[in-house]
Amino acid sequence: MASPSLTPDLLTTLHNKATTLRIESVRATSEAGSGHPSSCCSAADIVSALFFHVMRYDPKNPKAPNSDRFVLSKGHAAPLLYAAWAEAGLFPVSELLKLRTLTSDLEGHPTPRLPFVDMATGSLGQGLPVGVGIALDAKFVDKLSRRTYVLMGDGESVEGSVWEAAEIARQYALDNLCAIIDVNRLGQSDPTMLQHDMDAYRARWSGFGWHAIVIDGHDLTAIVSAFSKAAETKGRPTVILAKTFKGRGISFMEDHANWHGKPIPKGEDMQKAVDELTKQFKPNGTQVVIPKPVPPTTAPAAAGTMPASPYKIGDSAATREAFGVALEAIGAVNQQIVALDADVKNSTYTEKFGKKFPNRFFESFIAEQNMLGAAAGLAACGKIPFVATFAAFFTRAYDFIRMAAISGSNIKLVGTHVGVSIGEDGPSQMGLEDIAMMAAQPGVTVLYPSDATSTYRLVEAAAAHKGMVYLRAGRPKAPVIYGADERFPIGGSKVVRHGQSDVLTIVAAGVTLFEALKAHDQLKAAGISVRVVDLYSIVPIDRTTLLDCARSTQGRILTVEDHYAHGGLGDSVLGAVGAEGIRVHKLAVRVIPHSGKPEELVDHFGIGARSIVEAAKQIIK
Amino acid sequence: MASPSLTPDLLTTLHNKATTLRIESVRATSEAGSGHPSSCCSAADIVSALFFHVMRYDPKNPKAPNSDRFVLSKGHAAPLLYAAWAEAGLFPVSELLKLRTLTSDLEGHPTPRLPFVDMATGSLGQGLPVGVGIALDAKFVDKLSRRTYVLMGDGESVEGSVWEAAEIARQYALDNLCAIIDVNRLGQSDPTMLQHDMDAYRARWSGFGWHAIVIDGHDLTAIVSAFSKAAETKGRPTVILAKTFKGRGISFMEDHANWHGKPIPKGEDMQKAVDELTKQFKPNGTQVVIPKPVPPTTAPAAAGTMPASPYKIGDSAATREAFGVALEAIGAVNQQIVALDADVKNSTYTEKFGKKFPNRFFESFIAEQNMLGAAAGLAACGKIPFVATFAAFFTRAYDFIRMAAISGSNIKLVGTHVGVSIGEDGPSQMGLEDIAMMAAQPGVTVLYPSDATSTYRLVEAAAAHKGMVYLRAGRPKAPVIYGADERFPIGGSKVVRHGQSDVLTIVAAGVTLFEALKAHDQLKAAGISVRVVDLYSIVPIDRTTLLDCARSTQGRILTVEDHYAHGGLGDSVLGAVGAEGIRVHKLAVRVIPHSGKPEELVDHFGIGARSIVEAAKQIIK
Repeated sequence: MASPSLTPDLLTTLHNKATTLRIESVRATSEAGSGHPSSCCSAADIVSALFFHVMRYDPKNPKAPNSDRFVLSKGHAAPLLYAAWAEAGLFPVSELLKLRTLTSDLEGHPTPRLPFVDMATGSLGQGLPVGVGIALDAKFVDKLSRRTYVLMGDGESVEGSVWEAAEIARQYALDNLCAIIDVNRLGQSDPTMLQHDMDAYRARWSGFGWHAIVIDGHDLTAIVSAFSKAAETKGRPTVILAKTFKGRGISFMEDHANWHGKPIPKGEDMQKAVDELTKQFKPNGTQVVIPKPVPPTTAPAAAGTMPASPYKIGDSAATREAFGVALEAIGAVNQQIVALDADVKNSTYTEKFGKKFPNRFFESFIAEQNMLGAAAGLAACGKIPFVATFAAFFTRAYDFIRMAAISGSNIKLVGTHVGVSIGEDGPSQMGLEDIAMMAAQPGVTVLYPSDATSTYRLVEAAAAHKGMVYLRAGRPKAPVIYGADERFPIGGSKVVRHGQSDVLTIVAAGVTLFEALKAHDQLKAAGISVRVVDLYSIVPIDRTTLLDCARSTQGRILTVEDHYAHGGLGDSVLGAVGAEGIRVHKLAVRVIPHSGKPEELVDHFGIGARSIVEAAKQIIK
Repeated sequence: MASPSLTPDLLTTLHNKATTLRIESVRATSEAGSGHPSSCCSAADIVSALFFHVMRYDPKNPKAPNSDRFVLSKGHAAPLLYAAWAEAGLFPVSELLKLRTLTSDLEGHPTPRLPFVDMATGSLGQGLPVGVGIALDAKFVDKLSRRTYVLMGDGESVEGSVWEAAEIARQYALDNLCAIIDVNRLGQSDPTMLQHDMDAYRARWSGFGWHAIVIDGHDLTAIVSAFSKAAETKGRPTVILAKTFKGRGISFMEDHANWHGKPIPKGEDMQKAVDELTKQFKPNGTQVVIPKPVPPTTAPAAAGTMPASPYKIGDSAATREAFGVALEAIGAVNQQIVALDADVKNSTYTEKFGKKFPNRFFESFIAEQNMLGAAAGLAACGKIPFVATFAAFFTRAYDFIRMAAISGSNIKLVGTHVGVSIGEDGPSQMGLEDIAMMAAQPGVTVLYPSDATSTYRLVEAAAAHKGMVYLRAGRPKAPVIYGADERFPIGGSKVVRHGQSDVLTIVAAGVTLFEALKAHDQLKAAGISVRVVDLYSIVPIDRTTLLDCARSTQGRILTVEDHYAHGGLGDSVLGAVGAEGIRVHKLAVRVIPHSGKPEELVDHFGIGARSIVEAAKQIIK
């Protein structure tokens, strides 16, 4: 069934636009001397149909409310995306020749430095999870009619993250989501596993409950018809499985191996390709009319003020629990807050939020990659997503975290069950590398509260902060040591013990702060006075206070953390003061830990009060 | 079709063994005060059939050659696994009550500290990729008849890694692999998405080309019959989709939500459960006869000596290319070397090995998680797997790397295309957090060669080293600066420039080593003498040389690295010397980078010779 509006003249126009996109992709990559023209050519017809007939959007304002969204998951086809927006009129076509240069944001793979990119792509298999987030937002949060299109490569459809997204999209019946797979048969170094076995593709997607449509991806009538069928399909997402040829339209490139990621050499070869493509233009055609989005009738409500912390000094609560309490509280005053879980909501306490705000809570089941991608998609729609799971399991989604950092995504990650202090479950459940992985990414704020009051306030600060935030939360109960009025600005710290004759500064956070306080008392009893700093903000770090403390305590710092030794709190302190000749000693978990009782493990792995006292005595000797 | 050997008496025995496993799982978790008895009970019949009838193995020697392998992917059912091995006779049943204590290796989730565990589990979705590796080894490398069984939970089957493994197992026609899904309907915090919709499970697995058998997972006749059918199925792997009930056999737990991860309280409640289970024992039964494995007739060939490096001073080669050359060379002299690729073999140069040794090379397509899991499986079979991809894409498999580190797996990871020096492809393709993520894991050796000679020798050292190794390799060509006879012991470094009047030690590796050498010459021309250290071994680190150098250069070090600032080479140096009052200044990539020319980016992001010269002048001021 062809779209009723699909006249022969419009078909000609879409064909000519596709040809133009091919020519511009070839020219830009040849000029750059690198890039993926063959991967652009296979998808040019699909992109032409989407940009010049199917999608409703404002070509002058990619962020116009209720616009259809397009995610280029096969990010190496970036020149095709850039050419489409240039042809739509967003920027001059001449800009395309600045591809991949330091002075242009038309980079090798798309990033949100460009206004029409929701999330950086280029690490494959990430577009569909992002599309799931954008579609969840439209269906459940903003309740808008916009549709989301995700263009994937065939090779990348092996990535497990794609199948996580497939299952969740089906579960949430995302009929506003349409995936397209550009089945061009050839990977980078080999043909793909399924090559052009379109029935095998259909079996996989149908098996996952999707409406699967197989088409010739160079037949514009079939392409437009498939998009119409997708739009009419209710209750489940649609995937268009498009059989295409890599390098389509250029005889020496089409369906040939060894053209992956290679530009056509500038000069004679490029001219040959351009000439060949130019001959494919057809006469006649019609004016392109891009359908405009229907603006939403309501604006989001302004955020209110979070109530005071319900905790008082002397209470006892795990920081993970205080996070759950804070999330529920901020959710009540800010409609932009959404939350995502991966089947641990009764452990991370996000279930409190979920029960209160079911339309803003997304159970992502045991599929952490999709959870992160969906969160980034929701953030691209203006939401403030809190994503919580065991800190250890964020390692499962590290590539998504990396790409979210590249995108400057406004997502808030909360990792619970950190360190050996979780106890009996053993090393597989202990988050011991989370600070290393999060702090490595530029622009990610890393917070590590020790008590319920600071957790509560830091959740508020995380939500208010523009950009990625990671908050580290523990499993065991901890005493509340701060009054409800205490402030915890990002980048600050608290000197919780200090005296005139301090000979050492101990820097800690989380469970080790309380060990440091015990050690402080034991050392005091032995006549040794030490300072104790609660380093609740790891990135950015309170360099001024750390230097002041160190200089007041004979240039000595002892850090102690329930984290592995490399890349944790101690290294953050070293990074801040290491150029100043301060002596920094680190206590951290240095071997693969073991099951056991929490307090037993804290002691056994050398981060408890006993080890702190011993280290302190050794240092001041 | 029931197995012909399945007599009514044997059925009774298997039923009674399952009951015993349930009782022991209940007792052990009640004694520990934590754990997952409900998840053990659902799978007890399956495990009984496997351990006491189906699998060929030596209960006194889990590593006996050609034994069938069992991977418990749902690691939280560890007590069931432990009970099965105890009942098989490997260790006394009384040990089971030491579950989850610091002095027993019967941890909360299984680790290879136990001789019958091939790979730590407990992070879900990892067992099938490991099973793929074990099955690849049997089919293609060792050519043995042993079979591999992987028991998964239903909740974990949403993890994308499962579907990566499903696709690859089909591609390699692993008919020696049998997955079992314990479809017990209940996740941790909610029912699973598909609950008991067995047809939906079947559609997914059949859609991926597997032989899918749906059974009642508590019907031992059906279970044994399904394993027989699996063994008879040729050309494709089999999945047994077993409909079960969580907490099976205990009336107050069976199919009840809110019993995930909860032990039955010791005392009256536990006794009630044990009494109820005890009543389920049936009279009669027969002796258990565990079929023994057939030992292989040939032993692996002894490894030979790798030839000398083909590179000489003055040559030019990328370290990634030298890695490919070295891998091929060591592959020729050591039959235990295998290699895995994720569709970038023409970029990482593993294609050289692949062409020469096709039976030991596994194209893993764009599915990095499965690649890592399969490598760990191969390592568990005594192979030395080299796993190579772009360093950035190891982030996709960080949870597998974490679990491999917990397992002390003997895998060798090679990350190419590190840093901004890859150029035009942009940030998504740049490995800039790889040192942070690898070095964070205890026991992982991290190597970072700068030229082809050192790369060649470090590949040899990596293969010889028992344990995980990460080798960081670059994209651009680099001059060869070491002669073929130079030695590069793990944990060493090279002082490549030094003089009597050095005022600063510059520590670098990879592309920045050459920038440091340029800076050295420019500073020398300006009358400033600096020392330059090639830190080719990041973990372990040559603390002695670093301290010697720093103390000879006025206590000053400047590190420079093509890596983000947190958790990289600079932090490793700080970690080594930070307690000694040495002043360490770091140059690193501090923002999300951009596309551009390699040399332009190295300069622009502050890690080139210009920045080094400026920093050096500033430091010595």
